[in-house]
Amino acid sequence: MTTDTTVLDGLDFPVPALAVGDDVADLLFRQARTIGTFTDQPVTDEELAAVYDLIKWGPTAINTTPLRLLVVRTPEARQRLAAHVNDGNRDRVLAAPVTLVVASDPGFHQHIPTLAPHMSALADALDPQTEQREQMARMNTLIQFGYLIVGLRAAGLDAGPMAGLDTAGVDAEFFAENGWQSQLIINVGHREGEGTSYPRAARLDYEQVSLTV
Amino acid sequence: MTTDTTVLDGLDFPVPALAVGDDVADLLFRQARTIGTFTDQPVTDEELAAVYDLIKWGPTAINTTPLRLLVVRTPEARQRLAAHVNDGNRDRVLAAPVTLVVASDPGFHQHIPTLAPHMSALADALDPQTEQREQMARMNTLIQFGYLIVGLRAAGLDAGPMAGLDTAGVDAEFFAENGWQSQLIINVGHREGEGTSYPRAARLDYEQVSLTV
Repeated sequence: MTTDTTVLDGLDFPVPALAVGDDVADLLFRQARTIGTFTDQPVTDEELAAVYDLIKWGPTAINTTPLRLLVVRTPEARQRLAAHVNDGNRDRVLAAPVTLVVASDPGFHQHIPTLAPHMSALADALDPQTEQREQMARMNTLIQFGYLIVGLRAAGLDAGPMAGLDTAGVDAEFFAENGWQSQLIINVGHREGEGTSYPRAARLDYEQVSLTV
Repeated sequence: MTTDTTVLDGLDFPVPALAVGDDVADLLFRQARTIGTFTDQPVTDEELAAVYDLIKWGPTAINTTPLRLLVVRTPEARQRLAAHVNDGNRDRVLAAPVTLVVASDPGFHQHIPTLAPHMSALADALDPQTEQREQMARMNTLIQFGYLIVGLRAAGLDAGPMAGLDTAGVDAEFFAENGWQSQLIINVGHREGEGTSYPRAARLDYEQVSLTV
């Protein structure tokens, strides 16, 4: 990395330049915002597949990649989902071009022979360990959730991630058969105007979040 | 997004192009690998600060951003950390240019008046809810862990994320005073040669991980 002349608040040294351009840093992080208001422009299955095809390469423990996506499109499915989200989030779920329920798959271990052939024996060993599988699936799905937010932005899409759902209700509504466990939801589309009425919130400085030993 | 002619395995439609170039998609995801063998090139505090300065903008619930970093540099600190990682990971921790212990801060709520001023009252409400704070901190730290992996790569650094540590032991060793809770570790540096002797592992297709309703 080369060094530019930027000096950050709270840091008394110049910050090195990144390996990606400012346009990319802006698109993925700096100028990206959590979006609440979308245009009518649709989001296609092809676009979502392209996002997944990018972020599937992100690292997870033993390459388990347990993130699963419920893509909620139809008015009927939207209503079924909206019944299980908090009041403050309901209108956004009903209005977004598409909503993703990001879920974890505690049955991920069945794919270990494909995803981590050198660890195939783990598939049988994990089979009776339901609680450990649920925890592993949840942990690695959350890591993949981070990749997914970046991937949506890398595809030129805007994301409105939300917690605040009755996960047990969502699971009973949609995942009774496949056993997936809902974690979070993301409204996806293209921002209308600024897409949010909130000012950009502050962040902690590097020196507030790090210790060096 | 425009459409190019790529056809993915398992998909019967062309995949739309991303909003970032192939060089960026390769750097952040497609060609990136989990690295085990690093050159001697150091990783500076300035580089790590630049990474954090990028990924701090990624969304978390109520902007809590509870990820914290222990930057392990000195031979003595390395030995203290290595004593708490699995046998198979120990040599890598001792050899990496720098190792990050990614931790969550259950005391994140103290920063809510700064990070989410419109939710300031939550700081007091969460104060007695230790278990809920630990869970919120862990969940959002894992999401930020995903951003961090992308951010390290965006800074031209290679990452070797690892689970397999005695988190209670690490917490007692390093976090007795500040109450941080270790989650995962990442060796950071520049890859030596390929940086790994493992072949690229398979991933599931979009159609295997998604359902549309």
